[in-house]
Amino acid sequence: MTVDVIARLRAELGDVVSFDAAALDVTRDDRSGWRSATPPIAVVHATSVEHVQATMRIATATSTPVVPRGAGTGLAGGAIGRDRAIVVDVSGMDRILEIDTSDEFAVVEPGVINDDLDRALAPHGLWFPPDPASKAISTIGGNIATNAGGLLCAKYGVTREAVLGLAVVLADGRLLRTGRRTVKGVTGYDLTALLTGSEGTLGIIVEATVRVRPVVAGATVTLAAAFPDIESAASAAAAVTASRVRPAVLELMDAASVARVAEYLGPDALAGTPLETIAPGAAFLLAQTDGAAAAAEADDVEGVLEASGARVVRSTDDASGERLLAIRRAFHGALASRGQVLIEDVAVPRSRMAAMFRAIEGIAARSGLEIPTIAHAGDGNLHPNFVFDADEVPESVWRAADELFRTARELGGTLTGEHGVGLLKQRWLADEVGDDSFELQRGIKAVFDPLGLLNPGVMFARAGEQVS
Amino acid sequence: MTVDVIARLRAELGDVVSFDAAALDVTRDDRSGWRSATPPIAVVHATSVEHVQATMRIATATSTPVVPRGAGTGLAGGAIGRDRAIVVDVSGMDRILEIDTSDEFAVVEPGVINDDLDRALAPHGLWFPPDPASKAISTIGGNIATNAGGLLCAKYGVTREAVLGLAVVLADGRLLRTGRRTVKGVTGYDLTALLTGSEGTLGIIVEATVRVRPVVAGATVTLAAAFPDIESAASAAAAVTASRVRPAVLELMDAASVARVAEYLGPDALAGTPLETIAPGAAFLLAQTDGAAAAAEADDVEGVLEASGARVVRSTDDASGERLLAIRRAFHGALASRGQVLIEDVAVPRSRMAAMFRAIEGIAARSGLEIPTIAHAGDGNLHPNFVFDADEVPESVWRAADELFRTARELGGTLTGEHGVGLLKQRWLADEVGDDSFELQRGIKAVFDPLGLLNPGVMFARAGEQVS
Repeated sequence: MTVDVIARLRAELGDVVSFDAAALDVTRDDRSGWRSATPPIAVVHATSVEHVQATMRIATATSTPVVPRGAGTGLAGGAIGRDRAIVVDVSGMDRILEIDTSDEFAVVEPGVINDDLDRALAPHGLWFPPDPASKAISTIGGNIATNAGGLLCAKYGVTREAVLGLAVVLADGRLLRTGRRTVKGVTGYDLTALLTGSEGTLGIIVEATVRVRPVVAGATVTLAAAFPDIESAASAAAAVTASRVRPAVLELMDAASVARVAEYLGPDALAGTPLETIAPGAAFLLAQTDGAAAAAEADDVEGVLEASGARVVRSTDDASGERLLAIRRAFHGALASRGQVLIEDVAVPRSRMAAMFRAIEGIAARSGLEIPTIAHAGDGNLHPNFVFDADEVPESVWRAADELFRTARELGGTLTGEHGVGLLKQRWLADEVGDDSFELQRGIKAVFDPLGLLNPGVMFARAGEQVS
Repeated sequence: MTVDVIARLRAELGDVVSFDAAALDVTRDDRSGWRSATPPIAVVHATSVEHVQATMRIATATSTPVVPRGAGTGLAGGAIGRDRAIVVDVSGMDRILEIDTSDEFAVVEPGVINDDLDRALAPHGLWFPPDPASKAISTIGGNIATNAGGLLCAKYGVTREAVLGLAVVLADGRLLRTGRRTVKGVTGYDLTALLTGSEGTLGIIVEATVRVRPVVAGATVTLAAAFPDIESAASAAAAVTASRVRPAVLELMDAASVARVAEYLGPDALAGTPLETIAPGAAFLLAQTDGAAAAAEADDVEGVLEASGARVVRSTDDASGERLLAIRRAFHGALASRGQVLIEDVAVPRSRMAAMFRAIEGIAARSGLEIPTIAHAGDGNLHPNFVFDADEVPESVWRAADELFRTARELGGTLTGEHGVGLLKQRWLADEVGDDSFELQRGIKAVFDPLGLLNPGVMFARAGEQVS
């Protein structure tokens, strides 16, 4: 069978398909720390819709699994080349097909890097709000496939809100178009929203019509605050939301995160910031306000933070604002310099953030693991991180992660706020959504993909297909 | 079979179920102008989730169709009691179960009137952005079931963006919970978004967790402008969007609409407005800006409108602003005073509004019908209206509507921007979404409702179930 697949791929796709061991190997991991046990059988470097359609026709004819993949920057193992599968790499489909400056939408291929779209929009006074922290390296296709979040969601929405329509290659190779170019439209079920966040399990996104919006006018104000501990910082962040101000950015770092970043950046980078003299256990909060009311909103935020016992530094010029932001930006580099990193991604109602941070401290203490945690505090979205020195995520880390997920759910939250389920969290999905929802979702999957060929094992494993 | 259904309903639901001819008759229409040929067999006046579950268990056991219904204010025939069906009226499930002022969400039963939620939120400085023009009389359940729009969507989003989670009774009586209480969450397929706008065909909404937001601070500025004709007004509205300003409200009225409202309100109501002296063919545009930049944005809008040849009146006090808004608000009353009204609901990309208005003029001229048309111009959502003196929508009106729908699609638009498909437009759905999408949607329907009992004929008719 595999021989037949390879022959057909070669015959129909020619140079576009690769069986080279090095090319296959590249697809075996992403940024999640996960690596597949065996390589896929082929990688199709698609540069056209027809390449993707031809691949799916061959896959269906030969019952071969297919893994859609973009830049490989995922954090949940959603696009990993593995045993017996064909990887469809769409990162070469990277053209911006249309920018409509009057109607404020863009039509893009899935491999367009998020930042590249913003660069193309800037001369028109427009931008693309979905802003995963990885936007310099991640693609819009992956962004949509995971319904990615980012730093600005509380104010500017998650990716779903920016997707007007999609073109998707179905399991059998047909091309489905969903949605429209209008702001409103309610003809039929919202397949666009269903496909957004479906992690390549229902179809392969080959084109997206995305909503863009006017650049926010005026200067941004940046506030940086040090708190004696993370719980008071988390309570202060919730108090900012409860005060009805809506900062564009509201980021939290706990004591372990602050300590790792301080070591990594060194004292010079912290001079003049609230972290210049770091008390043990200190937590850090960064807020940015934007738009016409930026200064007034920053006053309000500053008032709330100071009333909560924080030491606050305020910046209104870009350079000093950038210095404050650099503290937060250095976080991932600081951890990566110390070993392999598993980034978790729970979300809780904002008022429960302090409780979640407290629970993380307890889990860290009981497990003996350090769990540096940052949060998009405006969304209640926490990223607890595990650093380890091994090829695979150690079982002790998964046990701690399991406790994290259960705690988040008990607090009214979810096991993944923005990274997706992927291969990493499939075993927890049914626990969160419940058996009825799980069965309905599998029913929907079967409508789109009756042979179960699209990204099997991702999101929810089919019986007998659990990937470990 | 019917005898059995009636006996079981009576036995399990007691006083909650009615077989009274007058009660049945009330459910036979909505605000669409549609009336069913025969009454339903029963109306369940549900006041609890258990009532809805018991009804669905009986419906499944006896293969009886069920029509979910709220306040009956729909505009597409989506909730009409008809032959052999049980109507589940959830308008009595009207409790606001929870308002979380810190995390900015509310949990409501489906029968809560939109305005009532806003009244409950106001003391907390919060509001519920989805604002169908019917918000004083329509329910949140119907709002979600149709993914309703309204006047503020371009700036504040459609209903889908405000729905965090749902509780839905499935066809067989099971209770499904979707979504969560957090801002972000990507665990599994987005069933919440799929159910939003599904018009009662996948399940019956019995509870919703909705996102609320801080009241917009500051004074609103209202601009009213008269244009020599609707095409210049529509072009000016598109130019406002293209200028990157985002008014909260941007409403257009064509010459026929202006004439009907002027007759209805009389000259006193128009004194001091741009309609004081109405030139033949004059069109009217109303804009409101809000938030911290309201005045500056109003300056920008005024500049664009005047450059487009408009006469503009500006109001910064509530009383005179209200007088300008009253012109737009009087529209539906003005038409209803003249006969039965069919309100259509096409949407096109904003830059194509002028073309759509021009096409409507052509259709009106060719058909000999007057088609007064208003538009939510910020969204490109037009409401062409037909007034007639008959119990049923005349075939000549449907022929003109058919031409409207085709034109909207040719311009890159849709046959329904915010009212839904219902019974009225099922015959056009497949034309718009295409055969592949139609089959996938029917597949999803079958996963949720294998016996086809939930609102049969609505949205897409199953083979042999086309309702006419």
